[in-house]
Amino acid sequence: MDAKIASPLVDCLQYANWSPNVFSQMRAGGVHAVHATIAYHENFRETVANIIAWNRHFERHPDLIFPGRSGSDIERAMREGRTAIFFGLQNPSPIEDDIGLIEVCHMLGVRFMQLSYNNQSLLATGCYEGEDPGITRFGRQAIAEMNRVGMVIDMSHSAERSTLEAIEISTRPIAITHANPYGWHAALRNKSDTVLKALTQSGGMLGLSLYPHHLRDGSNCTLESFCAMVAETASRYGTEHIGIGSDLCQDQPDSVVTWMRNGRWSKALDYGEGSAAAAGFPRQPQWFNNNADLGNLRHGLRDVGFCEEEVGGIMGGNWLRFYTASFGPMP
Amino acid sequence: MDAKIASPLVDCLQYANWSPNVFSQMRAGGVHAVHATIAYHENFRETVANIIAWNRHFERHPDLIFPGRSGSDIERAMREGRTAIFFGLQNPSPIEDDIGLIEVCHMLGVRFMQLSYNNQSLLATGCYEGEDPGITRFGRQAIAEMNRVGMVIDMSHSAERSTLEAIEISTRPIAITHANPYGWHAALRNKSDTVLKALTQSGGMLGLSLYPHHLRDGSNCTLESFCAMVAETASRYGTEHIGIGSDLCQDQPDSVVTWMRNGRWSKALDYGEGSAAAAGFPRQPQWFNNNADLGNLRHGLRDVGFCEEEVGGIMGGNWLRFYTASFGPMP
Repeated sequence: MDAKIASPLVDCLQYANWSPNVFSQMRAGGVHAVHATIAYHENFRETVANIIAWNRHFERHPDLIFPGRSGSDIERAMREGRTAIFFGLQNPSPIEDDIGLIEVCHMLGVRFMQLSYNNQSLLATGCYEGEDPGITRFGRQAIAEMNRVGMVIDMSHSAERSTLEAIEISTRPIAITHANPYGWHAALRNKSDTVLKALTQSGGMLGLSLYPHHLRDGSNCTLESFCAMVAETASRYGTEHIGIGSDLCQDQPDSVVTWMRNGRWSKALDYGEGSAAAAGFPRQPQWFNNNADLGNLRHGLRDVGFCEEEVGGIMGGNWLRFYTASFGPMP
Repeated sequence: MDAKIASPLVDCLQYANWSPNVFSQMRAGGVHAVHATIAYHENFRETVANIIAWNRHFERHPDLIFPGRSGSDIERAMREGRTAIFFGLQNPSPIEDDIGLIEVCHMLGVRFMQLSYNNQSLLATGCYEGEDPGITRFGRQAIAEMNRVGMVIDMSHSAERSTLEAIEISTRPIAITHANPYGWHAALRNKSDTVLKALTQSGGMLGLSLYPHHLRDGSNCTLESFCAMVAETASRYGTEHIGIGSDLCQDQPDSVVTWMRNGRWSKALDYGEGSAAAAGFPRQPQWFNNNADLGNLRHGLRDVGFCEEEVGGIMGGNWLRFYTASFGPMP
């Protein structure tokens, strides 16, 4: 099946409750690569425990998945009809206060790290803080080290000034793996025109999100509305800078979104993008429930006028180019 | 000897290379209480290791020292001719990202915590950052929890705005355990008139520092110059808000000050208050080399005109009052 497809299918952000069922759906959907979050608030040792759990998945399901380390692993996934899993961190908590843990995490397969989640981190500011002072002293060193070893700076959950400074300080293009334009849907997690211009003009990538809180009309967002937004975004910033980062959190209990939002830092409950009345995970749009549905986007993109080459780029070709350039030392 | 002294002698910040020699000097100097730093960059488990080391000191030298937990332990130290050791953290790294570790640290004897060291922390900003956004979301929760359990907020190494916000947010008086007025010596670590006014008008305490980088003329600062500064500070902010926090780092190798400044966050060397040409610990003023010399300050304070009651307050009576009010739940 996969051999007939000229371009890869890449989802640059998921945090499913990983299982053989989810891996089978990746294959049913022809998904060649997934950037899988392996830490939200975990420290280094806890992150290693999550890697151990992934190693068991890889050992048990070699017919479905394998660890992705470089762009060429996406091409291997296309040849072999499997899915390459790339590790990423949504918070710098796994590197704790230790610059040396960046290279160690890279050795363990980590290829993306957000400089902050919703709160202030040791490196940068998250999008839920009232103030954003930009990149810290440690943050500047961390960016240089990530640039050196080939770990992508991901600013999906970071605040505006920190994001602009990360783009400027980094000597390599960065990514916003899962967010949409703020102009389409005014969520705190979506990104301003200023950020998207700076991101894409520096060679960076935007992964468009299918998480209902990031969508116009939320869970009721239509495929047509989403794809019209993709077309508008492509015309503003360039099709070649756009990919998918679905933020799919399939099969997770609501306790997981509470953990994402509150970690261990809060004695009160923080509802993040939700509310007390709607505290759990939002319902997925009916046209995207799991990996098997991801290919549906191709039709929607064709319907808003993208040519086949552009569809291929948005669905994975652009991420393939970015992964190939980003995951090792500078050439 | 101690029974003859009506007021206690308290040093509200030291980080010596703790040894029977240092403990004996505490006794020779008639020092009744020392706030001892037990963590700079350590995480929770590493801090516990430092507490274990202190437990061994307490077990081996019960004739010299014992663990201090409340203000009444200072009075016990005066009665028994021993020194009460109070634990403090110069960075919130021991609580990691976990609000629950504040109470656990308090259970283990910690009575002071700086919300930040020189860099940005998860709670507040350090004095070496270029920008200071004030207290973070986690920081606000941490202050409330510290207020609840009776752990003193110490802003000695924090930046200006974070310090002013901590004073405002905290429902209990806070401390700057080791710093001097910026107007006397313009070091980044010394404190502005604005901060000292807000600190003292809210019932907080300032521990005056004897660390050469905080002193006018550095290692050559005279006892007379230091005590004239104390008199000026007392006249501006009130004698009752002033104590001593010597920042004595006796018998430490220079590798320790490198660790303090660089932790694990930097691949380049940061010299903090020093410089490449003077990277190590500075030489102590000749009139304050160790705990046995601390009593010398009494003479200097009398010579600049303080009455006996004021000298007693500055040398420890003010800290006794503050410790008594601060180390448990709100009365």
